[in-house]
Amino acid sequence: MMNQYCGTSRIAGCQFSLHPMSDQFVNIILSTLEEVDTSKVWMETDDISTCIRGKMVHVFDVVKAVFLHAAKTGEHVAMNGTFSIGCPGDSEADVYMDETDVPVNEEKMSEISQPAGCKFALYPMGTEDYMDKIYEQINLSNDRNVDVTSVHYATRLDGDVHDIFQALYESFDLVQQKVSHVTMTFSLSANSPTNR
Amino acid sequence: MMNQYCGTSRIAGCQFSLHPMSDQFVNIILSTLEEVDTSKVWMETDDISTCIRGKMVHVFDVVKAVFLHAAKTGEHVAMNGTFSIGCPGDSEADVYMDETDVPVNEEKMSEISQPAGCKFALYPMGTEDYMDKIYEQINLSNDRNVDVTSVHYATRLDGDVHDIFQALYESFDLVQQKVSHVTMTFSLSANSPTNR
Ligand SMILES: [Ca+2]
Repeated sequence: MMNQYCGTSRIAGCQFSLHPMSDQFVNIILSTLEEVDTSKVWMETDDISTCIRGKMVHVFDVVKAVFLHAAKTGEHVAMNGTFSIGCPGDSEADVYMDETDVPVNEEKMSEISQPAGCKFALYPMGTEDYMDKIYEQINLSNDRNVDVTSVHYATRLDGDVHDIFQALYESFDLVQQKVSHVTMTFSLSANSPTNR
Repeated sequence: MMNQYCGTSRIAGCQFSLHPMSDQFVNIILSTLEEVDTSKVWMETDDISTCIRGKMVHVFDVVKAVFLHAAKTGEHVAMNGTFSIGCPGDSEADVYMDETDVPVNEEKMSEISQPAGCKFALYPMGTEDYMDKIYEQINLSNDRNVDVTSVHYATRLDGDVHDIFQALYESFDLVQQKVSHVTMTFSLSANSPTNR
């Protein structure tokens, strides 16, 4: 369903923060940003979080690259954020919608293997049958190459970061094809001492 | 509005993660948890996040206390999470709804003064006029003792942690009185080197 507040733009975005649990957090964040190609997304960073916007494929590509390059330092790294699409009033970064669909970070990071845990929750907005859409998505998650567990207020995914992001992307994509305005929160954790 | 999926229970919850950007992150998290009284909420922690549930007043009390006691170490500390109320199927922690309304951490932390920045977003679920409810809330935020800025996908609050949490609580409370199922994401940051 569409509602009166949502335009036709399918620009996606993600507001996220990266948290290396290390005295070297500034260096890890800066060196991570150096390794990630952000040329296909609009980007703004402040002291709380980073916001990127553009085509869905590039938004997920950059978020995954930031997490992977930070996690490969071996430090305990967490990342939290919210993906969003169809948010009313969202047009400022429209110029980035002309980019091609090739994800620019994929080749460089494809060889990084990194286990992680992720909790995510999907919020289809402005629709009264939203729970059906969520449950439908959660069932489909079981077919993916990640361990899926239901936790309070969220779904937990465990596996390689590439597979986790594939599941996140497909879940988000499935719901945004049916609902104009969708948000998806996520919490990622890698190299936690709890799992060592 | 109510919808068919939401029950009458007004149990609230918060899924959050605390991120001290320090080699001492384990000690900071453990000592913080020792200082916070969690007796009035149901609580479960894993390697990604902590989930607490109970009366709204106690959920906010505990989340604020965790952030304040961690931030007073002086380390750069971030906290991310999602408050939720009226989530379908939410009943396991109902026993905690018998607690009195006195927030148990307030007295101990009332003397801690701590500046912070916070981005939050409200998601009223299952209602087609959700944007009206969000904008109504954002306007009211201007009356509170915090600096309010509109940012992409969120609202930013700057001020003392006590005032930030007061604004978060009131915003969430206002919307949950009108909408059965509401979630609210937040990202808090204190002692960022960017602000020193
Ligand atoms: Ca240290």
